[in-house]
Amino acid sequence: MSENISVLGLGLMGSALAESLLAAGHRVTVWNRSPAKAQPLVAKGATAAATPAEAVGPSDLVIVCVLDYPAVREVLDDVSLAGRVVANLTTGRPAEARETASWAAERGADYLDGGIMAVPYMIAKPGALILYSGSQAAYDRHEQALAVMAEPRYVGTDPGLAPLLDLAMLTGMYGQIAGFLEAAALVSSAKYPLTEFTSTLLVPWLNAMAAGKPAMAAAMESGDHRTEVSNLEINRVGVDNLIRTFREQGVRPDLLIPMKTILDQRVARGLGHEGLSGLVEEL
Amino acid sequence: MSENISVLGLGLMGSALAESLLAAGHRVTVWNRSPAKAQPLVAKGATAAATPAEAVGPSDLVIVCVLDYPAVREVLDDVSLAGRVVANLTTGRPAEARETASWAAERGADYLDGGIMAVPYMIAKPGALILYSGSQAAYDRHEQALAVMAEPRYVGTDPGLAPLLDLAMLTGMYGQIAGFLEAAALVSSAKYPLTEFTSTLLVPWLNAMAAGKPAMAAAMESGDHRTEVSNLEINRVGVDNLIRTFREQGVRPDLLIPMKTILDQRVARGLGHEGLSGLVEEL
Ligand SMILES: NC(=O)c1ccc[n+]([C@@H]2O[C@H](COP(=O)([O-])OP(=O)(O)OC[C@H]3O[C@@H](n4cnc5c(N)ncnc54)[C@H](OP(=O)(O)O)[C@@H]3O)[C@@H](O)[C@H]2O)c1
Ligand SMILES: NC(=O)c1ccc[n+]([C@@H]2O[C@H](COP(=O)([O-])OP(=O)(O)OC[C@H]3O[C@@H](n4cnc5c(N)ncnc54)[C@H](OP(=O)(O)O)[C@@H]3O)[C@@H](O)[C@H]2O)c1
Repeated sequence: MSENISVLGLGLMGSALAESLLAAGHRVTVWNRSPAKAQPLVAKGATAAATPAEAVGPSDLVIVCVLDYPAVREVLDDVSLAGRVVANLTTGRPAEARETASWAAERGADYLDGGIMAVPYMIAKPGALILYSGSQAAYDRHEQALAVMAEPRYVGTDPGLAPLLDLAMLTGMYGQIAGFLEAAALVSSAKYPLTEFTSTLLVPWLNAMAAGKPAMAAAMESGDHRTEVSNLEINRVGVDNLIRTFREQGVRPDLLIPMKTILDQRVARGLGHEGLSGLVEEL
Repeated sequence: MSENISVLGLGLMGSALAESLLAAGHRVTVWNRSPAKAQPLVAKGATAAATPAEAVGPSDLVIVCVLDYPAVREVLDDVSLAGRVVANLTTGRPAEARETASWAAERGADYLDGGIMAVPYMIAKPGALILYSGSQAAYDRHEQALAVMAEPRYVGTDPGLAPLLDLAMLTGMYGQIAGFLEAAALVSSAKYPLTEFTSTLLVPWLNAMAAGKPAMAAAMESGDHRTEVSNLEINRVGVDNLIRTFREQGVRPDLLIPMKTILDQRVARGLGHEGLSGLVEEL
């Protein structure tokens, strides 16, 4: 079913979102602070609005994707939102999402906060995911349209939840990158071909190790950190060995140091018999 | 072809190795410091030796898998190794592997150092990998027998290379674990079900992100860190946002802090336009 949808903010991401909605046959009204960015979308069938208020006018679903939350407020400040669904796909913190949800409620709007787990060229392609939290009724009403942009996943009524899970996924990614940077520096110090190491050894290994994470999560949820695989005492010796090797190879192990600190700390509490899942309690 | 093979060290790993060789029809002689651990293997057809020298006696290929390198030396100290291949599958540092290779050469042995990328129950199963470095001739002569225990991968003549790549893979794993621990703490702070988050959101995301690592490795090898995806300046803002969110949620972001430090450092050098691969040059 074709809907009237507005997209405010036509940066790389907003443009990709608007384009996917147009391609799916929706009637899309667009607005951007610098008007020129609307032109390629107008050529594909969008209607360009001169102001945010004009853009919101015809639509029940208002998608906002600008730089940050202060920009969201700036854009929507004087706009009548009563009876609309605002789906804010701007990246931000859970606290900002909660504040913006209250702010939207005061203006009579239903609010959804979204976390986009994709880059622009992945929009409307398999593998792209957008997390939503906030008004369940708003999500249910627009799920089909949202599904055009990326696989939608509704995670709960707290508007801060989608940004929080988004940030948690990014956290996991930064940890993986940190480990990769250190591994790459070590391999390079031995003049071993790095791309070969990465594609034939490291990536399959990381994927195999990722498969063990749900079991670690279950241990964290139960608080039962017993292990038959590798306890903290053994991991502490392993990480010490690693750090010594980095120094012998002339590579800075900086990104690994807090892992050593937290292992030492947990073992010093007499919990060296636990598995790695127990470390979460130190955070 | 059935070979005479010795396995010295029958802890969890040594026992699994010996068992796989027996199951493949090799004539296996075993020795362990505490003799009782040989019994289950004798029941499966192994010959128990009373001393390391007696164990080495009949075999061309001598596999050693004990706690650490000092233990390897202790075990083999008075044993005649002339003409044997010593495959040392004990975990250690590259420097120790190189020393032990020289030590073995002085005794007339050919030396292979191995890094086992598996836990004992994975031995002889798909997915288990053992990296080997050192004597290419020794590897070629025994590749078939080695392949019984786990997929063997010969990585080069420098005996330190297998332990170095082993440690690099572990480094990647510890980074991934560090990211997971922080992500898990954040998700738990919001009372979202952690096992569900991990299996349905985080693991597929980490696997997708791992797929981008070979391209980062290629950038590191070429030194060309230009990016069209996400530059260091944007990542710095992202990590700052993350750390702020951790504090708002009452979770310690300790494991992420050095990632922030290194991002700040690289951006301060005026290299904020580079991609994440450039960070390797700070290590
Ligand atoms: N790109 C990605 O890979 C990606 C992935 C996930 C999430 N996101 C999120 O998506 C959002 C947009 O990202 P993007 O990639 O589209 O960024 P972008 O290409 O830099 O576009 C930024 C957009 O924000 C607008 N803007 C900035 N400040 C504004 C203000 N004060 N008032 C009105 N409009 C303002 C810009 O308008 P002008 O054109 O007038 O400057 C532009 O439309 C961000 O929150 C980003 O974190 C992006
Ligand atoms: N288990 C794993 O998941 C795994 C994975 C990869 C690599 N590895 C590596 O494999 C090696 C063995 O590990 P494991 O799991 O089999 O450990 P383990 O079950 O604790 O066994 C340790 C073995 O080392 C022997 N040993 C220790 N000190 C000795 C000494 N001074 N002289 C003679 N023998 C000594 C022990 O003999 P006693 O029985 O007499 O104490 C036992 O056979 C280690 O280097 C480990 O890092 C293990």
